[in-house]
Amino acid sequence: MIVELISVGTEIILGNIVNTNANYLSIQCATLGFSLYHQVSVGDNFARLKDAIQVAMNRSDIVILTGGLGPTQDDITKECVAEVVKKPLVMDERSRERILQYFDRKGSGKYANALSKISENNWKQALKIQDCTVLDNNNGTAPGYIVKENHKTLILLPGPPSELIPMFHEKVLPYLSQLQDGIFVSKMVKICGIGESQAETMILDLIEAQQNPTIAPYAKAGEVHFRVTASARTKTEAEELLAPVVKELDRRFQENIYSYDEQENLEDVVVSRLRQKHLSIAAAESCTGGLFTGKLVNVSGASEVLGESIITYSNEAKMKYLGVKQETLNQYGAVSEETAREMALGIQKAANSNLGIGITGIAGPEGGSAEKPVGLIYIACAYDRKVTVNEYRLRGNREKVREQTVVKALDMIRRIIL
Amino acid sequence: MIVELISVGTEIILGNIVNTNANYLSIQCATLGFSLYHQVSVGDNFARLKDAIQVAMNRSDIVILTGGLGPTQDDITKECVAEVVKKPLVMDERSRERILQYFDRKGSGKYANALSKISENNWKQALKIQDCTVLDNNNGTAPGYIVKENHKTLILLPGPPSELIPMFHEKVLPYLSQLQDGIFVSKMVKICGIGESQAETMILDLIEAQQNPTIAPYAKAGEVHFRVTASARTKTEAEELLAPVVKELDRRFQENIYSYDEQENLEDVVVSRLRQKHLSIAAAESCTGGLFTGKLVNVSGASEVLGESIITYSNEAKMKYLGVKQETLNQYGAVSEETAREMALGIQKAANSNLGIGITGIAGPEGGSAEKPVGLIYIACAYDRKVTVNEYRLRGNREKVREQTVVKALDMIRRIIL
Repeated sequence: MIVELISVGTEIILGNIVNTNANYLSIQCATLGFSLYHQVSVGDNFARLKDAIQVAMNRSDIVILTGGLGPTQDDITKECVAEVVKKPLVMDERSRERILQYFDRKGSGKYANALSKISENNWKQALKIQDCTVLDNNNGTAPGYIVKENHKTLILLPGPPSELIPMFHEKVLPYLSQLQDGIFVSKMVKICGIGESQAETMILDLIEAQQNPTIAPYAKAGEVHFRVTASARTKTEAEELLAPVVKELDRRFQENIYSYDEQENLEDVVVSRLRQKHLSIAAAESCTGGLFTGKLVNVSGASEVLGESIITYSNEAKMKYLGVKQETLNQYGAVSEETAREMALGIQKAANSNLGIGITGIAGPEGGSAEKPVGLIYIACAYDRKVTVNEYRLRGNREKVREQTVVKALDMIRRIIL
Repeated sequence: MIVELISVGTEIILGNIVNTNANYLSIQCATLGFSLYHQVSVGDNFARLKDAIQVAMNRSDIVILTGGLGPTQDDITKECVAEVVKKPLVMDERSRERILQYFDRKGSGKYANALSKISENNWKQALKIQDCTVLDNNNGTAPGYIVKENHKTLILLPGPPSELIPMFHEKVLPYLSQLQDGIFVSKMVKICGIGESQAETMILDLIEAQQNPTIAPYAKAGEVHFRVTASARTKTEAEELLAPVVKELDRRFQENIYSYDEQENLEDVVVSRLRQKHLSIAAAESCTGGLFTGKLVNVSGASEVLGESIITYSNEAKMKYLGVKQETLNQYGAVSEETAREMALGIQKAANSNLGIGITGIAGPEGGSAEKPVGLIYIACAYDRKVTVNEYRLRGNREKVREQTVVKALDMIRRIIL
């Protein structure tokens, strides 16, 4: 089964956004065992998009289009597909109802007149191509569509990743799975604390010898994920093929593996471990400025383990809230093992939590020196009457350094409470 | 002048890497004023790549190919182009010499035997298409090439961004600039507080009538950006064309515009305004869990305006650090205008800052009720003995609600200190 991706949007071909959707969908297709030969991006131009759809339908079985489903004049994907398959656009009452609900909810509070804010444009999103399947969008107003035409399938998805990814996962994935004969089963092995290049070197022999299962590496900020995929006639058979390979990865990476679950992030693992062990946590953040706690709080149910954190960006705040000593700051500086240690102990005491985390570092671009360069980070974890302090030297710009610091802190906690 | 991009590599269509090269080159082409209508990605497959090159040469003046110039059997870009333009591959003595030097340099240090590591494959990289221009690669072994054929130009660049970007900047940019007559100047108009659809409706007449300058909208979480681009023979002429359009956008969007600067984010504007006015800020965050402060701290120099913030996720923390009253929590709940107000006043007092921000809300997926649904957010800003509290009803999953809340808070502060 051959799949082709068409990304629609002038913002892509002008370079205003990076096309991460194409990457996400390519991974999904590879996992499903589909052959993806072409990714194409075109702007919001009727003639060129129509042409791209026709070319794709000639050489592929399934065409996935992303973007161009919004309410504006520029959004033309549905209109182009309708022309290519020669079907009219008709009002979809259910979509119309959902758009009304979307705006009505907004209007039900203080803004009684919000309903009047539904512009004429918005109703365009309630139109569907005749006879197609409508995919509800739970995170926006643009529905997706599955259109079948002459043994070809066209799948239209909204452009924003926050809408596309859940829609693909909930509705398109089950649909595509049943088109595939034979079964593909894959397992993720998520690794933290080892660089991408090193991780690949550690299993180069496996990657080079791979046939079935295949092993595909993906790098994420501070993490490496290996997806192991087996194809077979039955699920059991595929799982039997997977097992020894996953076991071998286990043997090589050991405690560096934090999850085997597609949907589980590092912060999910940390929060769920803390919950299991009935441990509470609080952080004192300097250079990360709240991003570490922000990440934990993104886990629904984090309130069971986290009640508070303090962002002590200034030295005064470090002394006032955490009891960091003036002498410590004078003698060792705000970015030092000693300050990180006092921050961790200080927040543990202030919050009366089982774990206290202290994070201090130089995120740059200013503030570095020969002795303490940009990227120097100290993370301290006070737990069970013991304080562990790790030093890291990270690379990249301010944002990247702060992002990696959060990953390092999460991984450190994961290992400490293992 | 029409440009087309072809990204070559199975790693792209399998989703192993995100195609950031296409994004980089699209920005460069837009800046140069070239029309880029198609981005295409294909795997390392001779027939499909040849086909893509032929299609691109038929509809574009310049074809930029990235990737597939490495030393392995899979690297076929040069070979495909040679076939399409019907020219032989010939040894390029200069490239041969540079490859020798490259390995020798590596070999001159620790790896004395590295020279013996030049595999037969590597010499493949010394072959060029007859009559083409060779672009030296100062960061790797694969040179780039400019091939001219029948008024069409093919530019072949190595895939790794660390080799492609410097080569493009040093060698391709000057080459392309001289092909372009006329100049393109663009200006960004960044808007916050108005939805994408509404913002476009407000200037639909301008968008529909556009010729030169053009107006292109881009949506970002909680923001809309319009890029206005004029083409002319000189910079002054282009700027004269831009001025009245930008003025008209000014007139229509007024204080909803927060910046005209490509590089400036909403948080940059907020921090810079606070700095100008010598105002300090501190936040008490509940549902955002540190993301608001984390965003501010991402601005280098934020320490001048922000010394501390407190993440009061639990009711206890709200009372302990901020003096939120037990009765307020009992009577109105943690997610209420009243609690937000007390949080803002509490942090303003605790931090002794000019502005105190209180953020509380229901990010979901749990915790919502008919009366207080998921997405209900209160943001309070205490400033100058006055407290403003705004209520928002936001849509989307937990992450999206929290992200939008941060944007709303930043925009609210921007307007208050305007």
